[in-house]
Amino acid sequence: MEFSSFLTSLGTSFVIFVILMLLFAWLSAKPGNNVIYYPNRILKGLDSFEGGSRIRNPCTWIKEALSSSEHDVIAMSGIDTAVYFVFLSTVLGILVLSGVILLPALLPVAATDDGVKSVSHTTSNHTFNDLDKLSMGNIRDKSPRLWAFLIATYWVSFVTYYLLWKAYKHVSWMRADALMSPEVKAEQFAVIVRDLPPVPEGQSRKEHINSYFKAIYPEAYYRSMVVTNNKEVNKIWEELEGFKKKLARAEAIYAESKTTGKPEGTRPTNKIGFLGLIGKKVDSIDYYSEKINELIPKLESEQKVTLREKQQDAALVFFNNRVTAASASQSLHAQMVDTWTICEAAEPRQLIWSNLTIKFFKRQLRQYAVYVIVALMVLFYMIPIGIISAFTTLANLQKILPFIKPIVKMKAIKTVLEAYLPQLALIIFLALLPKFLLFLSKLEGIPTESHAVRAASGKYYYFTVLNVFIGVTLGGTLFSNFKTIQKQPDTIVSILASSLPGNATFFLTYVALKFFVGYGLELSRIVPLIIYHLKKKYLCKTEAELKAAWFPGDLGYGTRVPGDMLIVTIVLCYSIIAPLIIPFGVIYFGLGWLILRNQALKVYVPSYESYGKMWPHMFIRLLASLILYQVTMFGYFGVKRFYYTPLIVPLPILSLIFGFVCSKKFYPSFHHTALEVASHDLKEVPNLEQIFRSFIPLSLRSEKIEEDQFEDALSQVSKTGSSV
Amino acid sequence: MEFSSFLTSLGTSFVIFVILMLLFAWLSAKPGNNVIYYPNRILKGLDSFEGGSRIRNPCTWIKEALSSSEHDVIAMSGIDTAVYFVFLSTVLGILVLSGVILLPALLPVAATDDGVKSVSHTTSNHTFNDLDKLSMGNIRDKSPRLWAFLIATYWVSFVTYYLLWKAYKHVSWMRADALMSPEVKAEQFAVIVRDLPPVPEGQSRKEHINSYFKAIYPEAYYRSMVVTNNKEVNKIWEELEGFKKKLARAEAIYAESKTTGKPEGTRPTNKIGFLGLIGKKVDSIDYYSEKINELIPKLESEQKVTLREKQQDAALVFFNNRVTAASASQSLHAQMVDTWTICEAAEPRQLIWSNLTIKFFKRQLRQYAVYVIVALMVLFYMIPIGIISAFTTLANLQKILPFIKPIVKMKAIKTVLEAYLPQLALIIFLALLPKFLLFLSKLEGIPTESHAVRAASGKYYYFTVLNVFIGVTLGGTLFSNFKTIQKQPDTIVSILASSLPGNATFFLTYVALKFFVGYGLELSRIVPLIIYHLKKKYLCKTEAELKAAWFPGDLGYGTRVPGDMLIVTIVLCYSIIAPLIIPFGVIYFGLGWLILRNQALKVYVPSYESYGKMWPHMFIRLLASLILYQVTMFGYFGVKRFYYTPLIVPLPILSLIFGFVCSKKFYPSFHHTALEVASHDLKEVPNLEQIFRSFIPLSLRSEKIEEDQFEDALSQVSKTGSSV
Repeated sequence: MEFSSFLTSLGTSFVIFVILMLLFAWLSAKPGNNVIYYPNRILKGLDSFEGGSRIRNPCTWIKEALSSSEHDVIAMSGIDTAVYFVFLSTVLGILVLSGVILLPALLPVAATDDGVKSVSHTTSNHTFNDLDKLSMGNIRDKSPRLWAFLIATYWVSFVTYYLLWKAYKHVSWMRADALMSPEVKAEQFAVIVRDLPPVPEGQSRKEHINSYFKAIYPEAYYRSMVVTNNKEVNKIWEELEGFKKKLARAEAIYAESKTTGKPEGTRPTNKIGFLGLIGKKVDSIDYYSEKINELIPKLESEQKVTLREKQQDAALVFFNNRVTAASASQSLHAQMVDTWTICEAAEPRQLIWSNLTIKFFKRQLRQYAVYVIVALMVLFYMIPIGIISAFTTLANLQKILPFIKPIVKMKAIKTVLEAYLPQLALIIFLALLPKFLLFLSKLEGIPTESHAVRAASGKYYYFTVLNVFIGVTLGGTLFSNFKTIQKQPDTIVSILASSLPGNATFFLTYVALKFFVGYGLELSRIVPLIIYHLKKKYLCKTEAELKAAWFPGDLGYGTRVPGDMLIVTIVLCYSIIAPLIIPFGVIYFGLGWLILRNQALKVYVPSYESYGKMWPHMFIRLLASLILYQVTMFGYFGVKRFYYTPLIVPLPILSLIFGFVCSKKFYPSFHHTALEVASHDLKEVPNLEQIFRSFIPLSLRSEKIEEDQFEDALSQVSKTGSSV
Repeated sequence: MEFSSFLTSLGTSFVIFVILMLLFAWLSAKPGNNVIYYPNRILKGLDSFEGGSRIRNPCTWIKEALSSSEHDVIAMSGIDTAVYFVFLSTVLGILVLSGVILLPALLPVAATDDGVKSVSHTTSNHTFNDLDKLSMGNIRDKSPRLWAFLIATYWVSFVTYYLLWKAYKHVSWMRADALMSPEVKAEQFAVIVRDLPPVPEGQSRKEHINSYFKAIYPEAYYRSMVVTNNKEVNKIWEELEGFKKKLARAEAIYAESKTTGKPEGTRPTNKIGFLGLIGKKVDSIDYYSEKINELIPKLESEQKVTLREKQQDAALVFFNNRVTAASASQSLHAQMVDTWTICEAAEPRQLIWSNLTIKFFKRQLRQYAVYVIVALMVLFYMIPIGIISAFTTLANLQKILPFIKPIVKMKAIKTVLEAYLPQLALIIFLALLPKFLLFLSKLEGIPTESHAVRAASGKYYYFTVLNVFIGVTLGGTLFSNFKTIQKQPDTIVSILASSLPGNATFFLTYVALKFFVGYGLELSRIVPLIIYHLKKKYLCKTEAELKAAWFPGDLGYGTRVPGDMLIVTIVLCYSIIAPLIIPFGVIYFGLGWLILRNQALKVYVPSYESYGKMWPHMFIRLLASLILYQVTMFGYFGVKRFYYTPLIVPLPILSLIFGFVCSKKFYPSFHHTALEVASHDLKEVPNLEQIFRSFIPLSLRSEKIEEDQFEDALSQVSKTGSSV
């Protein structure tokens, strides 16, 4: 890529960014858009604007984001979001501290040498540009100037160790503070028990569980909730909820029609056939009311059947204090480990009820199967897509779908389709990938939503780094050097290293595009805004529908973190070779921090809280990026034929030791809850009944079902205690 | 080795065995030898003989051993010994079930082919003997007869899986039964707390510990015992005990001298200089009494100083019930994992007090350092020994120790010395190896004696299998084929496989020697008997000295298991190639089971109880031997150029899966105590004071030290509870 085209691309991105910023300033000031720009504040019952004034400075949000404390973030968006900001600011710190030393030190050293010129005289296909003059590629082979770059490699590594250590400690205490909070949190009183053994003769499931836990925790055991197979009851409940929504909508339409001149209004109608397109025409309000009245008793009887007959071999067990629950989730209960398996409970909203009943070894098996599938997908994902692309040529499509023939015959459309069809499969694949990975992670049998998101995020990370970074870098190089690699597999590092400088400008552009366009769209929320206004105008009739149209969802760090991680990897790997990339990294993470701070405080609504369990994953992947950087530098110094290249070797070893020490010292308290943390006092005596009820799935909740009907599956010790 | 020399060696071993058995029958019937042949029964206060009759059938011990139940073994020698018998009987079962099928099936198949003859015609250095005709070596290459051997390979593997699974389950319940016993066992109420953080200002160590555990376990916490640096006090205490023994001895000598005609007796004297050889002559009784009187107040003041000022950052913490102690040892207590580290306590007698205070990361560091040292030793132990041997030639010794010159000049002695000196270093090294490995294991910072023995046993296993089995087998072959291996490292398996048949008779002889001579010596206890009688006659004066002379020690499975494991590995690896080895294996383990059963019931006194924690180590090593066998067979079928050799590949994979499933299902309950086990009722209310006192080291015990002096280090909640 030429230097001028790089500047053009940078300029274009910047212009787009400025336009998006202006749009944001203009749109966010309109009160009608409040639900798009301040949904989190609205849902928390706060004023949209901090001050409450209607006219505001378009730059106020920057001031607000900068002045917000970590405590504000935790209060508005939870620990998970705060941890994400620790991640952002740690990376920002690493890049700033590196840049402060590297830019003034390395750029002059590189610029005053003339390695590029001498090379470009000999090899004709090397495109010489001004950027290359400022990179390590401009240093002659074996030059003593390489010492500066070697020391810089160490500097970046030590800065990373220092800031990562500080961050891990900080996050660890943040998690501890949240877990020791005096607020009563339902999940801190419960544990998940899986792999229940068969019930002994003459005992019910709940009696079995009660007697088992009563024996071990005579004082702390409260009661248990047997997990049931809710497939049927969920289906009926969803159907019922669907009809309720439709009824509300029909009533809203009817009410609307009344106001417009015709006081009696028009009763809305619908067809009852496939998708409401065919079949008999009926009066909507009557029809839905009737359906609801039919379904309510059906739901009630199904609830009873579910609670009584669809009990599975898993349960939620409740304790009357946090320490016992925390300790129980960490202790081995059964002599045979594939029975009475216990793990920490999570918030009721994030429990994946259907995964709780998967058996011990089946979970293991599923996990390994998923790992193998993902590994194959990461390595060979181009193959199935290539096959699909090959089949979806225009000629083939015409055969399969003859009705598209007339469209294809048009010259202009044909050209466009021919150009884009091959990429279509890839684009669809990449768009669906995160969802597919989440689906795979849930297949593993993971019991909670947040854990599944973490697992999917890890898989996405491997995919991104391997395919985008290593794929682009090696790309052609690898194929042309394939024979060399076969002979000497150890050359792969030096090939990776030598092909890095050629791609520097590509990645500079990539990073710039990411932050200018990506964060511009993020802040301005143009797409959700347009969708919301369209829906509001043409679709939404009821309040609930309107709320669903603007509900922002969560920050989605599952896909956000791998994206950021890719940038970290790129910037770290280039930090010494082309130090000019560091400011771009700084802008990416600085701008990201600022804009996402605004979004976290005002827009996104967290859908679960895992108390920062994502951090160890972020840490280990940052460290992996650091090691990749160190190995790459080892290769590149080798390419430069620097005699002291082996001095790099201690760095990856040091990184491994650092990772080992951190994992030993900090990780276990992320995996479990430390008892000293759980033993802090609560501000009030916990309402155990309420805690218990919060775990009952929506589809099983009913005011009509009496306590004694619940008793079949939901045991209570206070009543059965005497019979045990 | 020729067939005749094999028979000669076998015959000689058998004759030695018969002589030793006769000796045993004769010697064990003499009442004066009871303390050698029945010490365990005597120490337990039982009759030496089962029936109590003085004249007994020389074969009664066999009947008694065979009729003894596992329960008897547990009662007389503990769970650890019972687990060792499960190991022996499992291996015996594997070999019997294999032999029953393999011997009648494979021997005829091998004997009726003529592969050896055809080979021996072409290669001259192959020694043809009758044994080879009964081995797989006699099958021609590519012969369809190899199918029988392939199926046999599968049979042995499946028999092993089945019996190992049964054994693991059995041992697991045996451990559970012992841990849920209604007897009060002190170690089940205590945990070890290490890495205590610095004491906050204005608090004592014990207040700090009390307040920490009181907060987490308000009801179950009893009190704590701070670990002290006992180096000084131990030294004084040992000195004192030494003088007490010497005084008793002097008094015994004096009393003895009185009876012999001279009623006033001779007061014994001794010299007070170096080793009692030089210096002033003093009256022993007066001298030792004076020394004891000097040391008692010194010990008392040192005890006070130790308790008050030598407190370390480790402690023992006591709970008033087993469940809490078991659960506490498994739970994470501190947010920072390198503080308040908690693990299960062990019996007071096996705690390594000085290892308790080693810090978290120092333990990790020591562990890895020891691993590296052991790995280097296993791989390169011949190098230092070679160097030492080279320096200890006669010529060198004469230079260093001139006074041996006259001895060396004698021709006969010179010849012997020259022949044996090179081996001397090796022999000394091999004799000291188990002790050295135990020393290394303790250096790791392991807190209990039994754990250190397990760690040392593992190291010894690697040493034995690598050096004896693989070393002997490959031996010369490896060096002569070194160039081939360098080119194709994957040929190492086929080289190992092809060199196996040539060593079959060597190992047959080795196994036979092991069981005939080894177990003969074991049962007859000739060496301890002679030592005891010599000591009794010439050295022992007091009862205590006499008891020390016959005290048998424990079974020593730390070194026994690796030895047995070597036999298992040899027999398994040869089971298909030369099925004739199976009966030898059966005799080894059958005879071993019988003789050691006798020794366990009557002789050895266990020195600790770890509730079968050795089993997972035995299991995993048995499995490793099985995998080595499967890989070897893969190689040997390859050497035989059998087309269906790849059919062996699933076996090692199956073994790995089997090991994974067993470890997942059974292992955790060996690492920790399952809570359902600990929650069983006790037969009496535990005397917590007594449990606490049993953990006080001998050197710190004193009737004179008042309760309030202990209070400095040994906190009690009941008294300090109000001030916390």
